Formats: sequence, C-alpha cells, structure tokens
Amino acid sequence: MDKYMEIAKLNAEKGMKKQEGGPFGAVIIDLDGNVISTGNNKVFANNDPTAHAEIVAIRRACEKLKKYDLSDYILYTSCEPCPMCLSAIIWSNIKDVYYGCTRKDAGEIGFRDDAIYEYLKGNNKDLINLKPIDRDECMETFKKYVENEGIIY
Amino acid sequence: MDKYMEIAKLNAEKGMKKQEGGPFGAVIIDLDGNVISTGNNKVFANNDPTAHAEIVAIRRACEKLKKYDLSDYILYTSCEPCPMCLSAIIWSNIKDVYYGCTRKDAGEIGFRDDAIYEYLKGNNKDLINLKPIDRDECMETFKKYVENEGIIY
Repeated sequence: MDKYMEIAKLNAEKGMKKQEGGPFGAVIIDLDGNVISTGNNKVFANNDPTAHAEIVAIRRACEKLKKYDLSDYILYTSCEPCPMCLSAIIWSNIKDVYYGCTRKDAGEIGFRDDAIYEYLKGNNKDLINLKPIDRDECMETFKKYVENEGIIY
Repeated sequence: MDKYMEIAKLNAEKGMKKQEGGPFGAVIIDLDGNVISTGNNKVFANNDPTAHAEIVAIRRACEKLKKYDLSDYILYTSCEPCPMCLSAIIWSNIKDVYYGCTRKDAGEIGFRDDAIYEYLKGNNKDLINLKPIDRDECMETFKKYVENEGIIY
C-alpha cells in the first residue's frame, strides 16, 4: 500500500470513531514527500458540516504554512473527494490528488456525494432551491471591486 | 431591495476590503426571519481558501446553534454559490438559497467559479489530476463503518 495512502487510511479510522464524523481521512505532502498536515472527518466533533477530511487537512496546511495557496502540494484522501472538497482542493491550487474508495463506494454506504455530483451535472433538481434576486444592487459591489483593482485568485 | 439581501451585500462590502478576501457576503436566517449568522469572504484574512462567505456563515451558524444540521434555515448570498459553497449548503441541509450576482458575473470579474462548474459537468479536464490507488485497502474502513452501524448523514 502507498505509504501516504496508509496515513490517509489511518486518519479515516480516526474519523470513524463515534462523535468524530465519518470514515474519511486525508494527508497533504510537499514535493519532497514531507507530511504537511493530516485530517479526518470532524463533522460531529466540530459541529461543522464543512469539516470533511480534505478540508480539515487543507485548513491545517494553510494555517501551518501561513498562506492560502497550496500550489506544489499533493493530497491523498481515503475516498474520492465530494464536490465540496474537490472544489476546495481546486481553490487551494492543489493539482494532484490520489484517492482510495470511489464516490460510488461512499454512495453505497449511504453518503450523498454522488447525489451532489448528479445535481451539479443538471440532475436531482429538488436537492436545493436557488432563487436569483437583487442582481443589480449586488453587482454594484463587484463593479467597485474591479474599479479598486481587488485581487483575483 | 430585499432586507436580507441588503445584509448579504453589506457583508460583501466588508469582504472587499484589502486583506479580507473578496466581494462576497452571506447571511443565514431562521424561518421567523431572525438573523442567525453573517459571513464575508475571509480567504486572505484567515489564510483559508475555504473561507468563502457562505462557508463562514454556515460555520458560524453551526457554532452558535451547536449542531451541524441547518434544516429549516435560509441562506442569502450576494453571489450565486460556487460549487464548494453550494455543496457545503447541501451538506448543511439548507434547502432555500437566494443569490444576487450570478456565477457568470463572478467569472467576468476573474473568479474561477464557472471553471469549476464546467469541470463538474465533465469539461476543463486539466483543472485537477485525480488518480485512484489502493481502493481495496481503503474499502476495509468503509466496511468496518457499516458493520459498526456508523451514522450516515
């Protein structure tokens, strides 16, 4: 077994404990193979629906490195990232991800990863109700940001 | 202008300040219209690529309410949620979301929301490299979770 995936799996075993969150673990390494951070699902422990293993590991790496940009780091996760985590990984600029179980495996034990993926493909339309309002007023802030040359990332 | 979207917009103006994060704001209310939490983009302020306005507001609401389930709460956001935030909203069980600017508007001022949406539809394949490894070993943890009747959410 890959030695980094083994660390991700050990974290998944931690995440599985009662009051922790779920059987998911992750680890972030640098290009020299040094472990920067680990994470396990802490949804229950932190009362935080965003505390999936990958996001916990990303937050810890960023806190440690004092930057929000993880270009040139690599993430290992015991399960294919859900769309929230996958998008978080893209926002963090991590480019290379290794995963163990698949989204289908997560779906088969009852998690909604695959349902969210389907929504994002245009299916499962009743998963959430999104309603546009007040676009003109909200656009004023965007325009000011552009005029002030705000940072884009 | 809707009074809750006005609060979201005020938060977007906060998020626009230098060293804060970006021109995005959100507010979560209960079904009686009480404000539970607000949030603005804090990617720079917190060195956290996951600190988008909606996720900041969700985490604050969950911290305040001491639960990870926000069924029966409503979210207003100054811009259509990116896939990370949209998925976080679904994981939090918020069902109703009102948004101001669109993902296209965010794309036009340079943010990658739309690029990530396209990836999730099967396009932009070079945005991230996902590689499966060690599925059999990782599945052992899933199997144990099922045997132990771990909570599914």
